[in-house]
Amino acid sequence: IVAGATSLCLCLCLAENTEMVNVVTERKAEESHRQDSANLLIFITLLTLTILTIWLFKHRRFRFLHETGLAMIYGLFVGIILRFGVHLPQDLSDVTLTCAVNSSPTTILVNVSGRFYEYSLKGEVQDSKGHDVPNAEMLRKVTFDPEVFFNILLPPIIFHAGYSLKRRHFFRNLGSILSYAFVGTLTTCFVTGLVMYGCVVFMKVIGQLGGDFFFTDCLFFGAIVSATDPVTVLAIFNELKVDVDLYALMFGESVLNDAVAIVLSSSIVAYQPEGDNRHTFDGSALLKSLGVFLGFFSGSFAMGAATGVMTALVTKFTKLRDFPLLETALFFLMSWSTFLLAEACGFTGVVAVLFCGITQAHYTYNNLSAESKSRTKQLFELLNFLAENFIFSYMGLTFFSFQHHVFNPLFIIGAFLAIFLGRAANIYPLSFLLNLGRKNKIASNFQHVMMFSGLRGAMTFALSIRDTATYARQMMFSTTLLIVFFTVLVCGGGTTPVLSLMQIRVGVDTDQDNSVTPDGMTQRSTKHESAWPFRLWYTFDHNYLKPFLTHSGPPLTSTLPACCGPIARCLTSTQAYENAGQLNDEDTELILNDGGGLMYSDMMVSTDAHGMPTPSTSQAGLYSLAGTSDDPLDRELVFGGTRLVLPTDEPPDPLTSFPPPPPSPPLLDPLRHRV
Amino acid sequence: IVAGATSLCLCLCLAENTEMVNVVTERKAEESHRQDSANLLIFITLLTLTILTIWLFKHRRFRFLHETGLAMIYGLFVGIILRFGVHLPQDLSDVTLTCAVNSSPTTILVNVSGRFYEYSLKGEVQDSKGHDVPNAEMLRKVTFDPEVFFNILLPPIIFHAGYSLKRRHFFRNLGSILSYAFVGTLTTCFVTGLVMYGCVVFMKVIGQLGGDFFFTDCLFFGAIVSATDPVTVLAIFNELKVDVDLYALMFGESVLNDAVAIVLSSSIVAYQPEGDNRHTFDGSALLKSLGVFLGFFSGSFAMGAATGVMTALVTKFTKLRDFPLLETALFFLMSWSTFLLAEACGFTGVVAVLFCGITQAHYTYNNLSAESKSRTKQLFELLNFLAENFIFSYMGLTFFSFQHHVFNPLFIIGAFLAIFLGRAANIYPLSFLLNLGRKNKIASNFQHVMMFSGLRGAMTFALSIRDTATYARQMMFSTTLLIVFFTVLVCGGGTTPVLSLMQIRVGVDTDQDNSVTPDGMTQRSTKHESAWPFRLWYTFDHNYLKPFLTHSGPPLTSTLPACCGPIARCLTSTQAYENAGQLNDEDTELILNDGGGLMYSDMMVSTDAHGMPTPSTSQAGLYSLAGTSDDPLDRELVFGGTRLVLPTDEPPDPLTSFPPPPPSPPLLDPLRHRV
Repeated sequence: IVAGATSLCLCLCLAENTEMVNVVTERKAEESHRQDSANLLIFITLLTLTILTIWLFKHRRFRFLHETGLAMIYGLFVGIILRFGVHLPQDLSDVTLTCAVNSSPTTILVNVSGRFYEYSLKGEVQDSKGHDVPNAEMLRKVTFDPEVFFNILLPPIIFHAGYSLKRRHFFRNLGSILSYAFVGTLTTCFVTGLVMYGCVVFMKVIGQLGGDFFFTDCLFFGAIVSATDPVTVLAIFNELKVDVDLYALMFGESVLNDAVAIVLSSSIVAYQPEGDNRHTFDGSALLKSLGVFLGFFSGSFAMGAATGVMTALVTKFTKLRDFPLLETALFFLMSWSTFLLAEACGFTGVVAVLFCGITQAHYTYNNLSAESKSRTKQLFELLNFLAENFIFSYMGLTFFSFQHHVFNPLFIIGAFLAIFLGRAANIYPLSFLLNLGRKNKIASNFQHVMMFSGLRGAMTFALSIRDTATYARQMMFSTTLLIVFFTVLVCGGGTTPVLSLMQIRVGVDTDQDNSVTPDGMTQRSTKHESAWPFRLWYTFDHNYLKPFLTHSGPPLTSTLPACCGPIARCLTSTQAYENAGQLNDEDTELILNDGGGLMYSDMMVSTDAHGMPTPSTSQAGLYSLAGTSDDPLDRELVFGGTRLVLPTDEPPDPLTSFPPPPPSPPLLDPLRHRV
Repeated sequence: IVAGATSLCLCLCLAENTEMVNVVTERKAEESHRQDSANLLIFITLLTLTILTIWLFKHRRFRFLHETGLAMIYGLFVGIILRFGVHLPQDLSDVTLTCAVNSSPTTILVNVSGRFYEYSLKGEVQDSKGHDVPNAEMLRKVTFDPEVFFNILLPPIIFHAGYSLKRRHFFRNLGSILSYAFVGTLTTCFVTGLVMYGCVVFMKVIGQLGGDFFFTDCLFFGAIVSATDPVTVLAIFNELKVDVDLYALMFGESVLNDAVAIVLSSSIVAYQPEGDNRHTFDGSALLKSLGVFLGFFSGSFAMGAATGVMTALVTKFTKLRDFPLLETALFFLMSWSTFLLAEACGFTGVVAVLFCGITQAHYTYNNLSAESKSRTKQLFELLNFLAENFIFSYMGLTFFSFQHHVFNPLFIIGAFLAIFLGRAANIYPLSFLLNLGRKNKIASNFQHVMMFSGLRGAMTFALSIRDTATYARQMMFSTTLLIVFFTVLVCGGGTTPVLSLMQIRVGVDTDQDNSVTPDGMTQRSTKHESAWPFRLWYTFDHNYLKPFLTHSGPPLTSTLPACCGPIARCLTSTQAYENAGQLNDEDTELILNDGGGLMYSDMMVSTDAHGMPTPSTSQAGLYSLAGTSDDPLDRELVFGGTRLVLPTDEPPDPLTSFPPPPPSPPLLDPLRHRV
C-alpha cells in the first residue's frame, strides 16, 4: 500500500445495536452543534460588550484605549473565567483501538456494523492523554481551526486596508513605502532572526531550552513578528489628523509588509534541504525559497490585479450601475473570487486580496454608482470591524485557553530586544538612505514615531497560531501573544503622548499640508521626488490604464496614437468624453472619506474653518511647484484626480462651477473642487 | 465500555516513516483546501454569471425569469458539466482496516506511530463502495454539509424577510395571515401527507416501491413541501405593484409558514412511539410531538422577540446612533446572537431569527440613525440576495451531483397532485371561513392567485436535503427538487400572465388602495376587521411597548397611570417628547422602502403621478371611515405610524409642513407625510 495515494481508509468495526448507536450519534452531533453555537455566542457577546464599551469611551472622549485593545482585554477576562471559573464534568472515556494504519488520510470511513461514518482530518493533536489543565475538552472546543483566520477573518481586513489606501499620498510616497515594506521587512526579519538565534544558542548553553530550535525557526519568528498592524495607530492618526505623509508612510508600510511577511514566512517554511543534513545551510534550498518568495508574491499580485481589472471592465462596459444591489453583489463576489482563485492555484489568497483591494479602489471604484460606492465602503468597513475585533478578542481568550503555552523568560526578553532592534534596523538606516534621494526628507521625529508605532496585530497572531505543533512553534506562539498584547496596549495607548512629545503636527487638513511645513520638511514636488520607474508608471496609468478601465481620465481617443482610432473609440465610454470637460472628483472623494472618518466624526474639527482663509495662497503655491504646463503628471498627483485635460491658466470659480458639497462628511472641503 | 459516553476514540496505528507520512498528510490537507477553494469558486463564478445575466434581463425588461430561476438553470448546466464533461483520475485506494469500534464518536484520534491526528465526524455515508457514477469523489466534494443551509444561508434570508415585512398591511391582515400560516399549513401538511400515503400504498400494491415508506414519512413530506417561498412571486408583485392586501397576505403567509413548516417537520421527526411497535399510532408520542411543536415554536418566538427587544433598549438608551458603524455592528451581532442563542438552547434558530427580524423592524428600526437604517437594510438586502442565489444555484447543481437520486414516476405524479390538493385545501376553505368574518372579503381572483403562486423554494430544499439517509428520504429529496424547479420556473414565470388573467389590479399606489376598490373588495375599516385580541394588542403595543422601546409613540408619561409617573419619566427619552408634537414617519419609511424597491427602480412607474391628483378624496374617505376621534387605533393603522396625538380636525398642508422628499427612492410619495 502506497501511503501517498491513500485518500480513503476504511475501518471495519462491530457494534451490537445499530439503532441505538445511530440515535446516540445523532444526539452527539446535535450536542456538538449546540456547543459550537454556545461558543460562537461567547464571542458575539464579547464583541457586543466591546462595542458598548467603546461607545462609552468615545462618548467620554477617552482616547488611549482602542477597541482592539479593549476586545483583547475582554477576551482575557473570558479566558480566565473559562479556564478557572467553570468546571464541567468530563464525560469522555477514551476507547483505544489498535489497527494498522500507516498514514493519516484526509478522510476516514468507519464501518460500524454496516453503516459507514465519514470522518475528516482536523489536524494533529499534541498530547492526547493526561492534560493537567482542567476543562481541557471545553477549552479545546473554544479553539478555532487556525485556517479560519486565513480563510475567513483576514481577507476582509486586508481587502479593506487595500480598498482604503489613501491613494494620493500613497502614490506620492510609493518609493519609500515599497522600500520600507520590502527591504525593511526583510531586514527586520533577518535582524530579528539573528538576535533570536543568539538568544537560543545562549539558552541552549545554559540549559534553558526544552527542545529543538533551529535557525530556520528563528528566521520564521523574525518573519511573523515583522508584520506590523495598521489598525490601532492609524485609527489614532486618523482621529488626530497627523501629517499626511507620515500617515501614508505608516499605512502603506503596514499594509504591504503584511503581504511580505506572509509570503516570507511561507518561503522560510519551504526551505527544506534534501537528504539527512537538514537544518544546515544548503544553497539550492535557499534558491528554492527565493523562488517560492518571488513566485508567490508575483503570482498573488498578478491574480489580485487581474480580478480587479476584470471587475473594472465589467462595471465599465455594462450598465450595472443602474442596479446598486447587483453592482455591490458583483463587486463583493469578484473580490472574494480573487481569494479563492489564488488559493485554488496554490498562491497566497490574502496577498492577492490586498492587491485586488488596491486595484478596485484605483479603477473599479470610479465606475461604481454613488450608491454602490457607499455600499461597498460601508460593507467592507463593517466586515473589517467585526473581523478585527473578533481576532483581537480571540487573541485575549486564547491566552488562557491554549493548552501548550511555553513561556520562557529568557526567550521573551530576547524577543522583545529582537523586535526592537529589528524595527530599528528597518527604520533608521532605510530612512537615512531614502533621505539621500528624497527631496522632502523623512524627519527624525517621523522616524521615531514609525519606530514606536510598529504594533504587531492580527497578521502576526494568525501566522503564529497556524502551526503550533513543535516546541519551537509553541514558544514562538506564546511569546508572540505577549508581544501583541504589549505593543497594542502600551505602544497603541502611548501613541498620543508620543506624537505630542515628538512635536508631530496634528489637525492637518489633507489639502493644506503642501503649503506650510513647519517642522523640517521642505516643500515638495512629486516630480523631483519620484524615481523614473514610478513616473513612467504614473504616465502610463493615467493616459492608458485609467481611460481603458474606468470612465474617468482623458478619452483614449486623445491619448492613443491615431492608428488605434477605431479601438480607442470602441473602448472609450460616452461618459469619459463628458467627464473630460468637467470636474471629476471621485478619486478625491475616496481619499477624503477614507476609513474611520465616519466613526470618529464627533472628534473632527471643521476643515472648512481651516481651509477657507487661505485658498489662493495654497493653490498658487501648488501651481508654482507643479512647474510648467507641459508636465501634467505633477498636477494629477497634487490634485489627486483625473483632471489633466483642464487648462492650467484659468482656474474656474469654485462656487459657480461646482454644486455645493453634501453636508455629511466633515472632511469634504470645497477647496478640493478647485482647479 | 458504554457507547453513550464515548466521545473520544483512539486508534493506535503503526507507520514506517513518520516524517514522510507527515509531509504526505500536510500535502493532502493543502490539496483538500485547494479543492475546496476551487469548488467555492465554481459557485462564485455561477453567481457572478447570474448577476450579469439578470442585469441583461432587467436591462431588456425581460420579466418572466427571476434571478433565482436563472441561478438554478446555471446550476443545472454546471451540474451536467461536472457529471458528464469532466473526467478526473481517481487516485483513491481504499485501505480497509478492521478494528473493534462499537459506536461512532464525534471525534476520533488516530495514532500514526506516535503522532495523533484528530478526525471529526462528518456524517454517515451511504454506500461507500462501487459507485456507478463517474467522478463520484469529485461530485461528493462539491456537496455541502446540509447544515450549512440552516446555519449560514437560511438565517440571513429569513431575517431579511422578517425585517422587510410591510408592516402596516401586514398588521391589518394579521388574523388572516396567521390563519393561513398556522391552520393552512397544518391542513396542507396533512392533506399532502394523506394523498402521498394513498400513493405509496398503491405503489406498494403494484410493487413499485423499493423500500420502506411509513405514514410519518408521508407527513414529513407534507411538512417540507408546505413551506412556500416568498422570493420570486413577491419580486414580481413588488415590480408590478399589485394590490397591497394581496401582497400582505402572500408575503405574510409565505414568511410565517416557513417557520411553521420547519417546526412541524421537527415535531414529526420527534414522533417516535416507544417499544417495538414503531410506525404505528401512539397517543403519547403524538402528544409529545404536539408538545415539541408548541415548545419549539413558542421558545424560538420568545428568544427572537427578546433579542429584538434588547437591541431596541440598547439603541434607545445609549447614544450609539452617533457612531453608525458601531450601531450597525451591534445590530448585526445582536441579530446573529438570536440565532446562536436559540440553537444553543436547542430551539430552532431560523424561527427565532424570523421573529427577531420582525421585532427589529417594528421597534429597533425606529431608534437607529438615518445612516444605520440604510446600512442595515442594504447589508441584509445584500446577504439575502447572495444567500438566496447561492441556494438556488446549488439546487440546480445538486440535481446532477447528488448520487442517490430515486426518481419514481408514480411518486412524482402523486406528489404534484398532492401539493396541488394540499394548497387548494389550504386556500379555498380557509378563505371561505375568513370571508365570513372579514369585512373586506378575499376575492376569488385573489384566492386563485394565492393558489397558483405557492412556489416552493429555499426552505423546502434545505429541509429535504437535511437528511437523505433512507430510501424514503432520497425519493422525497429527488421529488422535492423537481417540485421546486417546476414551481419556480413555471409558476414563477407564469405569475404575470396569471395576474392579468385574473384581472388583479397592478400599479397600485400603497396609499390609494383604501379609496377605490373596483374588483369586489369593499371599503374597509380596520376596526371592524380586527378581532378583539388583535385590537387589544395594537392598543397595548402603541401605548406602552412602542414608547418604552423606541423614541416614537406618545410619551409614557401620558399613557401610563399617574402613579407610575417617576418610572415613566425615567423611561421616556427627550426625543419622544419632541416627536410627540411633530411628524414621525420612520415607520412609513420602512413600509415604503421595503425590499426590492432599489433593485427594480427602473421599472417603477412614477407614484407621484399616480398619487397626486386625488389627495384630499382619499384622505377624506379615510377620515370618515376611521370613525370618531375617540378611537385613535384605527387612524394609526390606517396611517401606518405613530401619530396618534395629532388632532383629527386639522390636516396640515402636505407641502409646507414637511421637507421635500429625497429624490432617490421613487416610491417615496409626498402624500405619505400628510396627516
